[in-house]
Amino acid sequence: MSEADIRFRMVKERHKKRFELAVKKGEADEIIVPLCRYINSTKNFFTSSSCSGRIVLLGIKGKGKNKAYFHRKWHQAVSFDKVWEAIGENTKGNLWFKMEPFIIHIGARTLKDACKVLDIKNSAGVKRGGIIAAKPGKFILELIGTEEMALPVKLGDEIIVTKEFMRKVVEKANEKLEANNERLRKFESVVRAELK
Amino acid sequence: MSEADIRFRMVKERHKKRFELAVKKGEADEIIVPLCRYINSTKNFFTSSSCSGRIVLLGIKGKGKNKAYFHRKWHQAVSFDKVWEAIGENTKGNLWFKMEPFIIHIGARTLKDACKVLDIKNSAGVKRGGIIAAKPGKFILELIGTEEMALPVKLGDEIIVTKEFMRKVVEKANEKLEANNERLRKFESVVRAELK
Repeated sequence: MSEADIRFRMVKERHKKRFELAVKKGEADEIIVPLCRYINSTKNFFTSSSCSGRIVLLGIKGKGKNKAYFHRKWHQAVSFDKVWEAIGENTKGNLWFKMEPFIIHIGARTLKDACKVLDIKNSAGVKRGGIIAAKPGKFILELIGTEEMALPVKLGDEIIVTKEFMRKVVEKANEKLEANNERLRKFESVVRAELK
Repeated sequence: MSEADIRFRMVKERHKKRFELAVKKGEADEIIVPLCRYINSTKNFFTSSSCSGRIVLLGIKGKGKNKAYFHRKWHQAVSFDKVWEAIGENTKGNLWFKMEPFIIHIGARTLKDACKVLDIKNSAGVKRGGIIAAKPGKFILELIGTEEMALPVKLGDEIIVTKEFMRKVVEKANEKLEANNERLRKFESVVRAELK
């Protein structure tokens, strides 16, 4: 076995274990689990950290990643009432409402295998992402959906959106989450047909 | 010269010409021109279509790409008055306000060259993107900024945002465009230092 193959096996095993642990702990997004399991069952591919898409209220206390925190996270359609209630709660800094698309990380053994994933991405109409790391035995792809929303809803303690507007925003976000899930299902079906 | 090298030369020449034509016609985003010119001056790299980031009012007449049109596009900071005036004009379908990050396409001769661009992307703190096409003599990378906003402002003829809210939204969008440009400048400086 080549050095690259040994590396691939090790990395795949590590990510597989980490994934199954996350499922056990209930930390993995349910909707994406069968897709991840399928990819992990193939010989030349595995999944690393993934998210199926979500609606969030993100608190931003300043600049930089450490200054942001999740005030709320929903992986399914959410009711306006829940969002509005959460906006009214105590928060720090500014608060943004966001709908974030799925993000999937896939490891591939060779460049040829990685290109196979690129083909599948294109067939499934997934517009964003590509190979983000490439070394012998470790090709990592990141695929991202395109549905998204982002807007400020609160600056300091001041809610800057009206109730009527937010009702429409939540409706749109739920529509976008459904379109996101639709794309994910399409991707899963092409993966199951083409990735062996 | 190998077949791959011949392909690379041809593709690079074609993209270089197309880029200079776009500059001539005033279609290229000014802020990104020196970066693109530098990349085109190297031996093993070229740029394909790129956008430096922008603030847009996007009309959406239905589902699918053909149903969307630009009501307005700004590549620099925009005043609230201009945005508010444009929102008040006649539009078709729904209208979204969006701040979109830069998107740069770079061609590389070999996988090793493409990995060099990935390294530069990481050094410059560009979070999104990767190798989106990989064949001998034609490795294409897509790099995307992370600053973005997207929200509906008009459903049919009904403006759903208040003037006060939009004033803050435009302010945030201008801040994000500046952060986007800052990241682009950082990327350019690392490119000039590392990409030969």
